[in-house]
Amino acid sequence: MSLSPDQQAEIEDLRARPQQTLRTVAPGIEAHLYTAHPVLDHGFVRVIDYMGDDAAICQAARVSYGKGTKSVQNDEGLIRYLMRHWHSTPFEMCEIKLHVKLPVFVARQWIRHRTANVNEYSARYSILDREFYIPAPENVAAQSVINNQGRGDTLQGEDAARVLDMLKADSTRAYDHYQEMIDENGIGLARELARMNLPANVYTQWYWKVDLHNLFHFLRLRADAHAQYEIRVYAEEMCRIVADWVPFAYKAFEDYRLGSVSMSAQMVACLQRMLRGEEVTQETSDMSAREWREFKSVIDG
Amino acid sequence: MSLSPDQQAEIEDLRARPQQTLRTVAPGIEAHLYTAHPVLDHGFVRVIDYMGDDAAICQAARVSYGKGTKSVQNDEGLIRYLMRHWHSTPFEMCEIKLHVKLPVFVARQWIRHRTANVNEYSARYSILDREFYIPAPENVAAQSVINNQGRGDTLQGEDAARVLDMLKADSTRAYDHYQEMIDENGIGLARELARMNLPANVYTQWYWKVDLHNLFHFLRLRADAHAQYEIRVYAEEMCRIVADWVPFAYKAFEDYRLGSVSMSAQMVACLQRMLRGEEVTQETSDMSAREWREFKSVIDG
Amino acid sequence: MSLSPDQQAEIEDLRARPQQTLRTVAPGIEAHLYTAHPVLDHGFVRVIDYMGDDAAICQAARVSYGKGTKSVQNDEGLIRYLMRHWHSTPFEMCEIKLHVKLPVFVARQWIRHRTANVNEYSARYSILDREFYIPAPENVAAQSVINNQGRGDTLQGEDAARVLDMLKADSTRAYDHYQEMIDENGIGLARELARMNLPANVYTQWYWKVDLHNLFHFLRLRADAHAQYEIRVYAEEMCRIVADWVPFAYKAFEDYRLGSVSMSAQMVACLQRMLRGEEVTQETSDMSAREWREFKSVIDG
Amino acid sequence: MSLSPDQQAEIEDLRARPQQTLRTVAPGIEAHLYTAHPVLDHGFVRVIDYMGDDAAICQAARVSYGKGTKSVQNDEGLIRYLMRHWHSTPFEMCEIKLHVKLPVFVARQWIRHRTANVNEYSARYSILDREFYIPAPENVAAQSVINNQGRGDTLQGEDAARVLDMLKADSTRAYDHYQEMIDENGIGLARELARMNLPANVYTQWYWKVDLHNLFHFLRLRADAHAQYEIRVYAEEMCRIVADWVPFAYKAFEDYRLGSVSMSAQMVACLQRMLRGEEVTQETSDMSAREWREFKSVIDG
Repeated sequence: MSLSPDQQAEIEDLRARPQQTLRTVAPGIEAHLYTAHPVLDHGFVRVIDYMGDDAAICQAARVSYGKGTKSVQNDEGLIRYLMRHWHSTPFEMCEIKLHVKLPVFVARQWIRHRTANVNEYSARYSILDREFYIPAPENVAAQSVINNQGRGDTLQGEDAARVLDMLKADSTRAYDHYQEMIDENGIGLARELARMNLPANVYTQWYWKVDLHNLFHFLRLRADAHAQYEIRVYAEEMCRIVADWVPFAYKAFEDYRLGSVSMSAQMVACLQRMLRGEEVTQETSDMSAREWREFKSVIDG
Repeated sequence: MSLSPDQQAEIEDLRARPQQTLRTVAPGIEAHLYTAHPVLDHGFVRVIDYMGDDAAICQAARVSYGKGTKSVQNDEGLIRYLMRHWHSTPFEMCEIKLHVKLPVFVARQWIRHRTANVNEYSARYSILDREFYIPAPENVAAQSVINNQGRGDTLQGEDAARVLDMLKADSTRAYDHYQEMIDENGIGLARELARMNLPANVYTQWYWKVDLHNLFHFLRLRADAHAQYEIRVYAEEMCRIVADWVPFAYKAFEDYRLGSVSMSAQMVACLQRMLRGEEVTQETSDMSAREWREFKSVIDG
Repeated sequence: MSLSPDQQAEIEDLRARPQQTLRTVAPGIEAHLYTAHPVLDHGFVRVIDYMGDDAAICQAARVSYGKGTKSVQNDEGLIRYLMRHWHSTPFEMCEIKLHVKLPVFVARQWIRHRTANVNEYSARYSILDREFYIPAPENVAAQSVINNQGRGDTLQGEDAARVLDMLKADSTRAYDHYQEMIDENGIGLARELARMNLPANVYTQWYWKVDLHNLFHFLRLRADAHAQYEIRVYAEEMCRIVADWVPFAYKAFEDYRLGSVSMSAQMVACLQRMLRGEEVTQETSDMSAREWREFKSVIDG
Repeated sequence: MSLSPDQQAEIEDLRARPQQTLRTVAPGIEAHLYTAHPVLDHGFVRVIDYMGDDAAICQAARVSYGKGTKSVQNDEGLIRYLMRHWHSTPFEMCEIKLHVKLPVFVARQWIRHRTANVNEYSARYSILDREFYIPAPENVAAQSVINNQGRGDTLQGEDAARVLDMLKADSTRAYDHYQEMIDENGIGLARELARMNLPANVYTQWYWKVDLHNLFHFLRLRADAHAQYEIRVYAEEMCRIVADWVPFAYKAFEDYRLGSVSMSAQMVACLQRMLRGEEVTQETSDMSAREWREFKSVIDG
């Protein structure tokens, strides 16, 4: 990560100026405000603003359920109940605004989550910095042989070196040419055209604002072991921030979403038979070979 | 349900005029087009238009995943894979447009699903018909004593009769007064004001258009046993229509959504212990009493 | 409006407890926090929380447009530029959460704005209060004779009295029966059923959270002279709140949205001819009679 | 554009197989179905499916407004009325599904329109083709000197040649290295990593499904003279398709959106004064210099 001294000073200045508010304050996330948490080689996640806390989730739910919720004694119990039973609207009552710096190919995955507000740095208007994601050697991995969706073993020796050489050389050359094209004293090409020469590992940045329900949906998919490593590390950093912001909601999310398993009708039927002591095999399971494999991996732990 | 002879004739006329198209045609849903399927005492669901079929889901998925999907041999297998792994976008490539007549209190629940397009008959501009939902006696039930969220046993004898009398009398009087207020040769009150006198069991109608992914989300919540009976019967009618439209997708939805169970991290851990032969009780389960009860109800079947 | 002494005390308590935060604080809206602003006879609007201020709009825009925004010297100029040129995303970076009490027929219009988060008090779980909107006599008006979309002159004397009598009597009777039906020591009907007897002027309440861009869209439609009076008064109250929260953005909204006029290609062509001194009539305008009438009403002021 | 003989045969095959349907058929767009309309050097737009036509807009509006719409005699008049008065929901009742091939930097702008369904070809799973956008010489233009938002004069001679040389050479080298990295008999790097070496002028493709209201919003912004040329040509191609699909709605869109002008409160006040014969200057206009310039450019034509 590379914050300029000016940027670092601005962050420190913002953090030195507490103000009074009548709003709900969540102490756990106040500690994060403005600070840039490094991700990958040049990226970061910074909390710019937030709205609400665990209590705000309950407050919204109690408007929903009014006197009906008296039986749920406390906030944590209510939050766990809401999460377990897929009541999404109370979680939408919390909101967070992040400043994220990330490679373009990560941004392209990220933006697929449509229920969020985004202001991205525009390479049509402005000039991108010379910053490119170059993986650490341990993350340069082969195409998975098991499926088409991920990466397998880390590449070794010459192969990894050759990949890194190509990435670095092509990035450097692309940026040199980008600079040459847009040089106001030279060619002076329109920025909106010149940007097309930059590869997908160039860094961009944006303000991203999202409610807690949709953030959890994002984190469930992107903090998952099957997510691409380069977006997963952002999701993991955000998990740590959210855990400090709304600890009850985050714990419920961990138990009922991140660590949960969805069992099909067939899987539940098999489970019931197995718990009654019956021997069940794939042949007698009413599942495909692939489904059976997924089922076994869950119950064998 | 009360279609006028004119409306019935219009439906028959529309069904008698096939045209040629180059688009994908789904034979199973063509049989439903325009026909009003009765729901409750005066309501209905009619298919007005649709886009796509099972093959259209696969076509979109194959654009996304290209050669990566070759390993999944056939359309049904691919659709089941997509549903199991929460790939939602291919299902968004199918769309359906329904004409629904429903009581206002059902409409108020329904509209909470925001990702859909709606044109509702406006009582600000137009005059509502004298049609009110009056439950069948077997659906007049007491407040549940187990939770605050539903209904329990059917009311008997005098109690049920008294409820039905009140509902009928109040509806009739409210509509009489509504008519008196808006009478152009009498008081002539603005319709936008007069409508406020009508109770929530008056029928309204709307065109509702939604993609298949969001429709499945709606059906998962509203065809569930915990949904209020009066919206559940609409959801069940729609399930039958969808099963005819996209049979592979609907079957996958039944197996992996409607009939599925989400197990928390704690539940999965207990299952693994139980399948290894260990005795597990609520005390040793790391679950609350309520969670344990929910867990037992699943595994005991 | 009818806040209980308990509710009033809770509001005063919340307003007496400022806390420190590092977030952006907007002084103009801090003064509104928690206070219930009365609307109609029993309704209110209360600010529960907010995120951002005028400067936050600019901050997001400057991430987007980087050095490109340097030419716009100050925050107000930038905000006006963004509003004028339909740049919506920077305004999405502000968020507000309101607690609103409103009649059901108003809620039904309001909820058509889908891009917001809502938690409504649920009459399925809980018991509604005996509170109904009864219009003030000066708001009891006849159906408009000009169009089908609104109300015309105020009703006089006996007609108005008759309307108010019917509304009051029917509300009272409906609520008496509602109470009788749900009485736990009596019939004990399920609340989810009993609510259907209540008319559309019964009050409900919700938490409503929305970003500033979508709030402006709501206010443009609902603070408009053509909006129904009963929702317009809510919009007008919210306009006053927003003007205190983000004064630059609100002023730009007034000038470029609320008070603006959209001129069609034909209207612009006519204007150009008229400003060159040409006589233009409907016949030579390439507009329909209705469009010409709308055009004349704008340019004649 | 480069369709393979197989792809061309598939399109011809699909176009040769009309089927019978009871749905609404819009003849003007049937003629477009499946055919690839070339855009830029390798891109295209193809209509894959559609729902509804001009009449479907009116049908939905008439459910909304019931008897209230009788005064508008015909479909075209109703559609123009709806467009003029910002009634968006009836236009949402039409839907279109497109297959688009486009450079990544265009895709990044396009995806900012969130209210649409997208399935993009995934470079995480699959291998991208060796196809890059190289501008035609007449589109290689300098950065605008008037604002920061666009391009100015076409570059001449050596400068343009130098730009094209760099773009071609860098694309070629990047793709050569991409191939070398993913070669299954060579390095075998994971595709999800190798893709990061490809520049933003590489072509991608997606299925994009959107309702007519949101499509019009897209077209208003992207068919505008201020939109970047490379996305504008897609928007213009789509305008031609939409004009054939829903001719009344498209004409209304042209008159009231594409060709319309939004006048601020200050502009309207000035207009009124000018039409009464008063001399108005920027100084007496209550507008900034920039606003006055924009105003003059409209009224002077």
